[in-house]
Amino acid sequence: TPQLKPYYKQVDDLAESFIERLRKAVAIPSVSSEDERRPEVVRMGNFLADELKALGASVELRALGKQPHKENLDLPPVIVARYGSDKAKRTILVYGHYDVQPASKEDGWATEPFKLTIDDKGRMFGRGSTDDKGPVLGWLNAIEAHQKAGIEFPVNLLMCFEGMEEYGSEGLDDFIAQEADKYFKDADAVCISDNYWLGTEKPCLTYGLRGCNYYSVEISGPGQDLHSGVFGGTAQEPMTDLVQVMGSLVTRDGKILIPGINELVAPVTKEEEALYTDIAFTMDNLYESLGSQTSIYPDKKSTLMARWRYPSLSLHGIEGAFYAPGAKTVIPAKVTGKFSIRIVPDMEIDDVNKLVEKHVMSEFKKLGSKNSCRVWCQHSGKWWVASPNHWNFTAAGKAVEDVWGVKPDLTREGGSIPVTLTFEEKLGKNVLLLPMGSSTDGAHSINEKLDRKNYIEGIKLLGAYLHYVAAEPKAGGK
Amino acid sequence: TPQLKPYYKQVDDLAESFIERLRKAVAIPSVSSEDERRPEVVRMGNFLADELKALGASVELRALGKQPHKENLDLPPVIVARYGSDKAKRTILVYGHYDVQPASKEDGWATEPFKLTIDDKGRMFGRGSTDDKGPVLGWLNAIEAHQKAGIEFPVNLLMCFEGMEEYGSEGLDDFIAQEADKYFKDADAVCISDNYWLGTEKPCLTYGLRGCNYYSVEISGPGQDLHSGVFGGTAQEPMTDLVQVMGSLVTRDGKILIPGINELVAPVTKEEEALYTDIAFTMDNLYESLGSQTSIYPDKKSTLMARWRYPSLSLHGIEGAFYAPGAKTVIPAKVTGKFSIRIVPDMEIDDVNKLVEKHVMSEFKKLGSKNSCRVWCQHSGKWWVASPNHWNFTAAGKAVEDVWGVKPDLTREGGSIPVTLTFEEKLGKNVLLLPMGSSTDGAHSINEKLDRKNYIEGIKLLGAYLHYVAAEPKAGGK
Ligand SMILES: [Zn+2]
Ligand SMILES: [Zn+2]
Ligand SMILES: [Zn+2]
Ligand SMILES: [Zn+2]
Repeated sequence: TPQLKPYYKQVDDLAESFIERLRKAVAIPSVSSEDERRPEVVRMGNFLADELKALGASVELRALGKQPHKENLDLPPVIVARYGSDKAKRTILVYGHYDVQPASKEDGWATEPFKLTIDDKGRMFGRGSTDDKGPVLGWLNAIEAHQKAGIEFPVNLLMCFEGMEEYGSEGLDDFIAQEADKYFKDADAVCISDNYWLGTEKPCLTYGLRGCNYYSVEISGPGQDLHSGVFGGTAQEPMTDLVQVMGSLVTRDGKILIPGINELVAPVTKEEEALYTDIAFTMDNLYESLGSQTSIYPDKKSTLMARWRYPSLSLHGIEGAFYAPGAKTVIPAKVTGKFSIRIVPDMEIDDVNKLVEKHVMSEFKKLGSKNSCRVWCQHSGKWWVASPNHWNFTAAGKAVEDVWGVKPDLTREGGSIPVTLTFEEKLGKNVLLLPMGSSTDGAHSINEKLDRKNYIEGIKLLGAYLHYVAAEPKAGGK
Repeated sequence: TPQLKPYYKQVDDLAESFIERLRKAVAIPSVSSEDERRPEVVRMGNFLADELKALGASVELRALGKQPHKENLDLPPVIVARYGSDKAKRTILVYGHYDVQPASKEDGWATEPFKLTIDDKGRMFGRGSTDDKGPVLGWLNAIEAHQKAGIEFPVNLLMCFEGMEEYGSEGLDDFIAQEADKYFKDADAVCISDNYWLGTEKPCLTYGLRGCNYYSVEISGPGQDLHSGVFGGTAQEPMTDLVQVMGSLVTRDGKILIPGINELVAPVTKEEEALYTDIAFTMDNLYESLGSQTSIYPDKKSTLMARWRYPSLSLHGIEGAFYAPGAKTVIPAKVTGKFSIRIVPDMEIDDVNKLVEKHVMSEFKKLGSKNSCRVWCQHSGKWWVASPNHWNFTAAGKAVEDVWGVKPDLTREGGSIPVTLTFEEKLGKNVLLLPMGSSTDGAHSINEKLDRKNYIEGIKLLGAYLHYVAAEPKAGGK
């Protein structure tokens, strides 16, 4: 068992300077979705690179070229760095992002979004505090605490920090594919700290994500939008057809009505079934985040299973119809319904697409309408499930127990973090999601925050994780 | 029978100067919906007033106060005018509007929208040419032709020309109510020239309009929009409920599914049934204006009856859902479906509202959803049907026969022209809709036009109509 007390003490001693580092990072409004703030994103990348260099890491800024469809806008660089190259040690690749969501005081922030503001409960408010500047700096802070405490760093650390995560990670997949056998060649496992605890009390390790297939169903008829006074009652209206087709997809209780979809889902094993009981999650947690009690299930287990391991279908809206406040007596000529299916093991993207297309076209055909219908998958993303028995997870579990005094929950998430799957597929290594912040941090909302305790204990956790990684038995060499 | 030949000849002789008058009017971009063009609307009102004064009419510009919700914007004046006050003559009140729809070359106009451009087929392109500057100037031209030909004007003419018709006729209803017993006191009947022939060959007189009740149905649940990754499958989604409710309203073939609605419709009489056969209208006319063949009925009679004398229900769209191009994985927290019902005799607005509310709430209740639902009527407008046997119509019919050599079709319209009903209700007099332009004029579209022939013969028609009005027998005094 690693002896981590001196490291923990050093982190506590450096706490104020680590918060100062976060303050500097939050002060840089590195909003990737706003063109005019692109220089700030680059400035944030440089800040990170300079801090890493000062810690003795070897750092490279990798250009990704121009932003697609924006000839005059360079993508921000990917910051890759290496700290240590001892062949006797394991090499861990960590990923994070240094860009943030948009924010402005006018949106309703209680404090200046780009000024780290700490209240008397130790909540550190500021855009990017929890998503993802706190976790990214966590790795730097862990290095510094080792240095100041005179403790040998237990692994070689490879770092990959991007600046476009909040705007679709433009260019990153190709970059990872390119570097899999180059810069990332030595990686034995991957650790990503860019998600959140399920609740506010208990840490978790995340080993699964749902995928997402996003569909458009377009129904068209008239040559142009029509006036309902002149044509109402004489023309077959695309909206009438679309509402019927959209109404054939899912029930009030989330049951997907597309034949064959539910049969693709992997059956629940006894082992998995037992997992849910102990997870720190209550229906009140759900009601609080919903802002209502309009849940489908009354109990924790069904709710978690519905979120993590079953597919779901949501209707998002309609393009081409009237959407503004007020009244407009239009018969839209062409309307496109949008819906998506969250997919889970063992649903293959292509199988799902085929079933969706078949069902939609058959429902439309039933209507006997003279309008035209097409349906297509706008984009798709595979689900991801890692093995929580891998040493990467075992080590993280022990680190959580040491730092937080409790075994972490093993969780999945309902949403997708596409880069997870990219690392797994391109590198062929185990990927662990190791969150720092909690469920109430409000990553993409106003008043985003990271609790002081989550930040400081989180720094301890990242360091401890690396020590436990080093201590895990090496089957067959590594 | 009035002797109209000298009048007709004078109109032909003055044709070029009448076109010149229209050219001047079209050159003033009197767009009522654009605040910054309000001075142009006022300039157009002044132009009209000056022309009327030059013709010897007594003219008043009546202010309507500020535009609601726009403290700094005056409504354009209503131009009221009187030409003649011979107690022995009938007095006809005519209505028109001098404002126009927006237009800009960039929308796709083949010519400058505010420059009257005449092609070799005699089509006079320009915003407002047919809606409604051509018809409004028609009355002025008729006066001038009488003066130049030395023919006594057959009636007293009261005129009411407003400048806000294309933006909801703000303030006009109150104005008409106020002046019913004052400025409009002498009116024996009303004539409005602000609609169009059913086709392109045969003139019509219009004696009926459908009304319109516009509804919102709002379904809400979560406290804020949700991410479908996190909440998909665990929350009852308002969109899912709304699509079910909207799907319960109408079939592909326009059959309204709200119980009791169809029973409110006045039965078809033998007399009415016979009317449709002779109307100059073909399915090709419909297909051309639809821009497709996606009609509900294969035949003229069913189509015209569906447009004119049966109710229809159109789904317009959804407020609060995702409506843009692309993909957004949102679960909208509150969505408002918009639909409207075109109403016909004998459907009372309140009865329809009650049936709609009952049906929507009962369909929502069937779902057993935990979300909340409300439904309300956003605005309503009564249907209007006049007696085509009134002397106002008889006179117009004779005038059409004299000018165009054919009996006019007696038509209704599927849409509403609310001012029609206001004049009928406030003045208690017969109202006639006497269109000048044809179905292909494209009133609110790009490349709006008025055919030279429709303009010139239309001026003859307006004058002839007044002569036949004067010749109609006066039952019980007038
Ligand atoms: Zn993030
Ligand atoms: Zn984020
Ligand atoms: Zn008009
Ligand atoms: Zn108009």
